Amino acid sequence: MELFYAPGTVALTSLIALHEADLPFKATLVDFGTTQQQSSGYLKTNPKGRVPALVCDQGTLSETPAILAYIASLVPEKNLAPSDPFAFAKFQEFNSYLASTVHVNHAHGRRGHRWANAQSSLEDMAAKVPTTMAESFALIQDYYLQGPWVMGAQYTLADGYLFKTASWLKGDGVDITTLPRIAEHYAAMKQRPAVQKALSYQ
Amino acid sequence: MELFYAPGTVALTSLIALHEADLPFKATLVDFGTTQQQSSGYLKTNPKGRVPALVCDQGTLSETPAILAYIASLVPEKNLAPSDPFAFAKFQEFNSYLASTVHVNHAHGRRGHRWANAQSSLEDMAAKVPTTMAESFALIQDYYLQGPWVMGAQYTLADGYLFKTASWLKGDGVDITTLPRIAEHYAAMKQRPAVQKALSYQ
Repeated sequence: MELFYAPGTVALTSLIALHEADLPFKATLVDFGTTQQQSSGYLKTNPKGRVPALVCDQGTLSETPAILAYIASLVPEKNLAPSDPFAFAKFQEFNSYLASTVHVNHAHGRRGHRWANAQSSLEDMAAKVPTTMAESFALIQDYYLQGPWVMGAQYTLADGYLFKTASWLKGDGVDITTLPRIAEHYAAMKQRPAVQKALSYQ
Repeated sequence: MELFYAPGTVALTSLIALHEADLPFKATLVDFGTTQQQSSGYLKTNPKGRVPALVCDQGTLSETPAILAYIASLVPEKNLAPSDPFAFAKFQEFNSYLASTVHVNHAHGRRGHRWANAQSSLEDMAAKVPTTMAESFALIQDYYLQGPWVMGAQYTLADGYLFKTASWLKGDGVDITTLPRIAEHYAAMKQRPAVQKALSYQ
């Protein structure tokens, strides 16, 4: 498999997942500095012009929740996603919440041009990010995070996704120490070898 | 099972799914007119204050991609989601794209207050919706929609999700006839008994 990633993006979640699964893969950097993600070559891999993209024998996957479910399915003995159908759905629910609410809230800070044009709109959006991110993470802390891992006693690939999104808090104006269970999860994640390996990609 | 829904919302996708699966369920209307979705009673069911929410024996599910995967898992003989792990991941990728990009683009038309405060920002966001929705549906038509159904020859629950999001196009300023393969899919969906039943809920 080949993972297309860029440093500082949500692709870190997929890098963590591949290292947790201990699967062989090639990591290929997409240079956002030269907007390589919009080049005709990369758009053939992922027409959305985003990372991550995971090229597999059967085709190419994008969207973090899908990539995580697929990686977990390749190593069922590692229990990186729940096998019970309801628990698996809760795992997908959490990942979908991060993708469609948390990542979207965060993106209004620097990528508001996706949804509006005027400079005043972009500034208005950016000013609201601390509020929406604090609300989202309060809900994660109170409702989703079972502890010590997202799904409870069993570590899953959802934990790497929470780790990545929590890494945005400081830059988004939210003090993680006001969210003690999130902070505890974040600290525990930093101890994992797979996370340290994923963070080493530049 | 009990599905909490509101007319005119993305909960239609889950109503279609339950009827396609032919599973017994109770449908309970959440009255957005009196902001019942924010009432203390409903927030106990879904602390996000949104619909859909599907109450099951094992707990409550939200987020459409998770609900669809769970409903499909209850009736594997109906093949409402692909069983091959890679094809299942592509199914989840498509549903995740609708949740985190298409639904978000649409929401900037009427629910821009989630991400900004000034009236001028909300108007700026609303003005961009026709552009972002047209771009998203061009990508769906050219990249995702295999035809005749989203995943190819086999109808899956992703089709009901595409149908619901395509129903937004007119109000979002996009003429569906400029997207002939989307229009063809939309017309085929309207013929399905499960869709007609789901549309009858008021």
